[in-house]
Amino acid sequence: MRIALAYSGGLDTTVICRWLKERYSAEIITVTVDVGQPTDFKRIEERAYAAGASKHYYVDARDRFAEEFVSKDIMYNGLYEGEYPLSTALSRYLIAEELARIALREGCDAVAHGCTGKGNDQLRIEASLAYFLPEDVRVLAPVRELNWSRDEEVRYALDRKLPIELKESRWSIDENLWGRSITGSELEDPWTEPPWEAFKWVKPPSSWPEESEELVIEFERGVPVALDGRRIPLRRMIEELNERLGAHGYGVIDHIEDRVIGLKSREVYEAPAALALIKSHLDLEKIVLAGRCLRFKSLAEREWTELVYAGLWHHPLREALDKLVEELEKDVSGEVRMILERGSVRIAGRRAEKSLYLKRLITYSSESIFDQKDSEGFSRIWGMELRLRKLREKLNRKLKKG
Amino acid sequence: MRIALAYSGGLDTTVICRWLKERYSAEIITVTVDVGQPTDFKRIEERAYAAGASKHYYVDARDRFAEEFVSKDIMYNGLYEGEYPLSTALSRYLIAEELARIALREGCDAVAHGCTGKGNDQLRIEASLAYFLPEDVRVLAPVRELNWSRDEEVRYALDRKLPIELKESRWSIDENLWGRSITGSELEDPWTEPPWEAFKWVKPPSSWPEESEELVIEFERGVPVALDGRRIPLRRMIEELNERLGAHGYGVIDHIEDRVIGLKSREVYEAPAALALIKSHLDLEKIVLAGRCLRFKSLAEREWTELVYAGLWHHPLREALDKLVEELEKDVSGEVRMILERGSVRIAGRRAEKSLYLKRLITYSSESIFDQKDSEGFSRIWGMELRLRKLREKLNRKLKKG
Amino acid sequence: MRIALAYSGGLDTTVICRWLKERYSAEIITVTVDVGQPTDFKRIEERAYAAGASKHYYVDARDRFAEEFVSKDIMYNGLYEGEYPLSTALSRYLIAEELARIALREGCDAVAHGCTGKGNDQLRIEASLAYFLPEDVRVLAPVRELNWSRDEEVRYALDRKLPIELKESRWSIDENLWGRSITGSELEDPWTEPPWEAFKWVKPPSSWPEESEELVIEFERGVPVALDGRRIPLRRMIEELNERLGAHGYGVIDHIEDRVIGLKSREVYEAPAALALIKSHLDLEKIVLAGRCLRFKSLAEREWTELVYAGLWHHPLREALDKLVEELEKDVSGEVRMILERGSVRIAGRRAEKSLYLKRLITYSSESIFDQKDSEGFSRIWGMELRLRKLREKLNRKLKKG
Amino acid sequence: MRIALAYSGGLDTTVICRWLKERYSAEIITVTVDVGQPTDFKRIEERAYAAGASKHYYVDARDRFAEEFVSKDIMYNGLYEGEYPLSTALSRYLIAEELARIALREGCDAVAHGCTGKGNDQLRIEASLAYFLPEDVRVLAPVRELNWSRDEEVRYALDRKLPIELKESRWSIDENLWGRSITGSELEDPWTEPPWEAFKWVKPPSSWPEESEELVIEFERGVPVALDGRRIPLRRMIEELNERLGAHGYGVIDHIEDRVIGLKSREVYEAPAALALIKSHLDLEKIVLAGRCLRFKSLAEREWTELVYAGLWHHPLREALDKLVEELEKDVSGEVRMILERGSVRIAGRRAEKSLYLKRLITYSSESIFDQKDSEGFSRIWGMELRLRKLREKLNRKLKKG
Repeated sequence: MRIALAYSGGLDTTVICRWLKERYSAEIITVTVDVGQPTDFKRIEERAYAAGASKHYYVDARDRFAEEFVSKDIMYNGLYEGEYPLSTALSRYLIAEELARIALREGCDAVAHGCTGKGNDQLRIEASLAYFLPEDVRVLAPVRELNWSRDEEVRYALDRKLPIELKESRWSIDENLWGRSITGSELEDPWTEPPWEAFKWVKPPSSWPEESEELVIEFERGVPVALDGRRIPLRRMIEELNERLGAHGYGVIDHIEDRVIGLKSREVYEAPAALALIKSHLDLEKIVLAGRCLRFKSLAEREWTELVYAGLWHHPLREALDKLVEELEKDVSGEVRMILERGSVRIAGRRAEKSLYLKRLITYSSESIFDQKDSEGFSRIWGMELRLRKLREKLNRKLKKG
Repeated sequence: MRIALAYSGGLDTTVICRWLKERYSAEIITVTVDVGQPTDFKRIEERAYAAGASKHYYVDARDRFAEEFVSKDIMYNGLYEGEYPLSTALSRYLIAEELARIALREGCDAVAHGCTGKGNDQLRIEASLAYFLPEDVRVLAPVRELNWSRDEEVRYALDRKLPIELKESRWSIDENLWGRSITGSELEDPWTEPPWEAFKWVKPPSSWPEESEELVIEFERGVPVALDGRRIPLRRMIEELNERLGAHGYGVIDHIEDRVIGLKSREVYEAPAALALIKSHLDLEKIVLAGRCLRFKSLAEREWTELVYAGLWHHPLREALDKLVEELEKDVSGEVRMILERGSVRIAGRRAEKSLYLKRLITYSSESIFDQKDSEGFSRIWGMELRLRKLREKLNRKLKKG
Repeated sequence: MRIALAYSGGLDTTVICRWLKERYSAEIITVTVDVGQPTDFKRIEERAYAAGASKHYYVDARDRFAEEFVSKDIMYNGLYEGEYPLSTALSRYLIAEELARIALREGCDAVAHGCTGKGNDQLRIEASLAYFLPEDVRVLAPVRELNWSRDEEVRYALDRKLPIELKESRWSIDENLWGRSITGSELEDPWTEPPWEAFKWVKPPSSWPEESEELVIEFERGVPVALDGRRIPLRRMIEELNERLGAHGYGVIDHIEDRVIGLKSREVYEAPAALALIKSHLDLEKIVLAGRCLRFKSLAEREWTELVYAGLWHHPLREALDKLVEELEKDVSGEVRMILERGSVRIAGRRAEKSLYLKRLITYSSESIFDQKDSEGFSRIWGMELRLRKLREKLNRKLKKG
Repeated sequence: MRIALAYSGGLDTTVICRWLKERYSAEIITVTVDVGQPTDFKRIEERAYAAGASKHYYVDARDRFAEEFVSKDIMYNGLYEGEYPLSTALSRYLIAEELARIALREGCDAVAHGCTGKGNDQLRIEASLAYFLPEDVRVLAPVRELNWSRDEEVRYALDRKLPIELKESRWSIDENLWGRSITGSELEDPWTEPPWEAFKWVKPPSSWPEESEELVIEFERGVPVALDGRRIPLRRMIEELNERLGAHGYGVIDHIEDRVIGLKSREVYEAPAALALIKSHLDLEKIVLAGRCLRFKSLAEREWTELVYAGLWHHPLREALDKLVEELEKDVSGEVRMILERGSVRIAGRRAEKSLYLKRLITYSSESIFDQKDSEGFSRIWGMELRLRKLREKLNRKLKKG
């Protein structure tokens, strides 16, 4: 038997690498997909072999992640429940695709992943695998199946002398270039504040610069293409923004999240670039998209965000939504100016060739081209539904008298 | 003829006070409603008489504004287009109601207001007046009708020696306790940053305190009732929060807004209390309301926000939405902890007796009561729609061969 | 061990009655809830004892079904996917509640039901049981667990001489007063037409009366209260309408339905009363509810319909929706006139005291009270968003030249 | 001055043709667009000249109407408020476009139309004209402006010996191939039934054929392409279906409609082809589109329907919606079988190569490939939100005791 395993190098996947090998007398092929996590991939490879892998794949998917997944999140202003920029969620589809691709190339009988049964990742990974793989390739989820506590995993690893790091952080962290999620330990109490040392990009107040900083982001058709006038690939822009925005203390998210399986969890993220790019993109949209477009797009955004959160990236609806949004984004080109200042990022200005903001309509100065008299009839008709009930009551009173 | 006029004391309403008196040979009754604007109401009264009023009413509506209007905005997380807390909008319904009440008591033949034909206020005022007044009371909108430029108004006022202040701010400002809107002058260019001196509560970085500050807001059934453990009327809480939050530079809104009449305008507001109260209320809701409740409530919120923005406060739909939201808010009691720190306000914690966050379900420690094995079947069924297309294609291939 | 079993008297529940008794050496208490199915309840009871029950309960829930469940379906115009009046779905909540009530009274250790793993009923029953029962009462689903084919069930029953009827219809039928669902056999091919003999109320064309028939249904606050001028309990009205409408060939539903678990099924129902009552209720709403109320209500309707279809009757959102809808239905009182004519039911008229249809506004005769001139400004402003783009392009051309 | 006038040949446009000529000393160019109304276009032309036109255009737009407008209505299942297939609405955009095209070609200074100020047509025509014409071409609406009663119009016509027909029907009728709207006279009372003689295609019960009839409609990518196996242009199919379906008494619509300007009107239409094509299209969609696609598409349908009803065909949102819907409709190819039988049309079957209905998943026979055991975990997790509240209460009780 031959099993392709999505391998992160952490305790969970190291333990199940060995467990799968023993349990199925299988040949294990480990696959590590680089989506911007800060890992020593050389060491990961060594660890995979030490845990029993016969072959290891490293896939650098950072640019593809930025261009095919993150760019969509920007176009959709994709914040799940208004807060979470889907950083982990988006990466899972890419990881599952690479895992499936390698499993097919290597002729594997099964694929395996390290997701638990309590989260959303199992849904994202398994739905994607079902999409890419023929039905006779089995999907194994040993962590969910074994249901071991952390102590049991550690014991298993020590027994077999597996190369694990016991002095890991007290939090469980998932990181890629679009965001970092931090869970566990004191954060399981939603009344407790996340300590500054939990964050990597976002710096504490003591180190915020005195000087404010200005950023100008340029968009073309809804996607960021230049920073402060320099054209730059999206991945690089995100990396730079995480540093620059984080230095000013910007980028923390802390909310209660509804998982697909109905549980509520307290989630803490840092995502400086994601928050700032979505905020500025939305601001630009407001000046170029008509009000009705904005209103309907927000329904599409919510649907897309829920699909992506819930594991349904490969649903035909997502492709159809893309057609709608690509059409709407045709005009979303222009610049947004932001000011970073100790913990805050505020939009300071926006401009676009196709701006629908027309000073000559709105102004009260003498150059106005809007005829106020049109509003008289408009106002009377606009309130019609409020008048109908009254007219009816008046009429009924008359009828009763008459 | 007898006309009740909504009178703010500014140039527009001072000019039309006199103009109405002359044009209709009318007796003018001026009505000033206090919703928290920082005005010397004694001087307003004097000015009304100087402009030709025969009688003046001052109505202190501050508490009613907080308790009947602002509290709803908090329950609905009411931010028009995600940004504007409806401060001016909400006040217009109260002003129109008081104006109508006095017009009826005084037996007026007409009521008049100073709204232009380009904004939303005309819709709010006129729909409300149509709701409260019988049809034979005329509604006059001289500013919209005359369509005078500012210079023409000033000339009219100087000719008649009306008591106007010529050294007003270069911006046009509308203020009440829930927010302050600032328009005109350089702000008509959406690329230009609003200068710090445009703001009253929100202080510039140079004066932000070094020390961070903690706030605890307690809610009962969706409405704030206590601040840092002190029970306090909503109006007082808002006044205090505007000061405290503004001192840390928090509370500016700057966005492009879609008016009902289809124009886009650049709107700048400051609303420290509004933003913080809505943010914390929403945070609390996330821990006590089930995910499906949050999702549906967001549709109700959007509908309510659009009704209120668009002049339709007295629409029967608003009352029906209230029933829904009051039921949902039954459980929204608890506390939210916020940290203010130089320009930023972040949620640091939340707790509630009816919290649906249950650590024992979510935790990976040994005290967990969630059975991960349930997720295996869930995951397979959850992705069913993605599998159907594939099964169909496989079946079709078989049929073609067969 | 003591098990309360929801018992219909069919093959499935007869087999599992015995199986549970044997498997768990349990005492079985059978519960049959009457929601209008055309059953000989005396014989059901005998069969329960023959299958091994130690105690049998019969609960006549017909009036409660009509008044607490069906009336809501009318108020919500509840048709799942625009077609299915939720007849089976609604009954499941009542059955589960009675089962739970009796299980608690009898001190049972477990409850059992006969739902399969492919349908929606398992979700409806199990979510309700979870709502009503403490967690230590087990829920058993032997049909889903055993996964026996029909042949296996028959063999088991014959082996143990259980009292089953082998000459049942070739279709699988679920009936209550609100509708009858017919599945299986040739209906599994969605291209095949359902034969007339599958229906009970709906008669074939050969027997349609020559004469048309008129019906007048009166509603109070959204609920039908009188038929042709006679006040009559809702259950009786439904029974009468099923007969009268069915005689004219009205009441068949045939569509492809999306089950919660992601499968599509072809579903055939007959529900003459349900279709006609919902159709007439909706018609009445259109004359008394403002357009914006209708539009928002349709969102609430869809949400409610999906909750009820999907097993989530006891979700807190349903209660909140009820508050909204009760408020909206306050004005939904009046009469609807329908004509039945061989296969068709058409609305012929509607009237209501609070009708918002006002002939004097709409008419073009000289008694009109609507001022057409208001529409000129309205029309110009209404199309504003279409004009903005053009104005922008014109302006840009000027700027380029200039 | 030169004015292009949309000319129907009825009383209104004949009167305003002459009035415009006199009032503006203008040269009038009349434009009649054929969208399938049953008119003697030769006579219309003569009448135009008699009323004062200097030039007359006849435009045969029937095929374009079917292919560019009606086909979209089918793809969107476009029924305003669930009832009205937008027949008049759709035609107005085409008429306005042809009018604008000719006005530009002829170098007109103004265009004129005969819409009143109470309906929706003024919005459709004027928004379209604003889209197609430069701003310096005036738009005149003399009927709305003059606000004459019918008697005044007749007097004007008789005075000037204009060629009008005084013995017109007592109803006001607008007809094209997609539908016929009938208003006025006794229909202004919503309790009164429309008499059979008001209808043209739909025949009364006395003439319904004894025999039932079967129809098979084939769709490709959401558009009907063949009838009973014959490929046929859409316009021809509609004409044939109006006859065949109407003969069986099918196709009447009678409802209370909310106009854009807030008035309610009672609207009676006949539209046999429209109702049957939309009904069968929707039925086909249910077998090929995933449930989530259907649910989201229904939001797009409603938005599109409201845009088209409300005059906003040229809104950028409509184009964006088209992209979404074209993508979704890619799979909507297949056949629907309908049976016509005295007043009723029922779907008898549907089939499609890409059907997502899979008998082997749904069946309870031994060939099933769905594993019922997956449902156990699914059901438990599906009801999670219902269990959370209970778990919380239990936990709180413990905490209080503990």
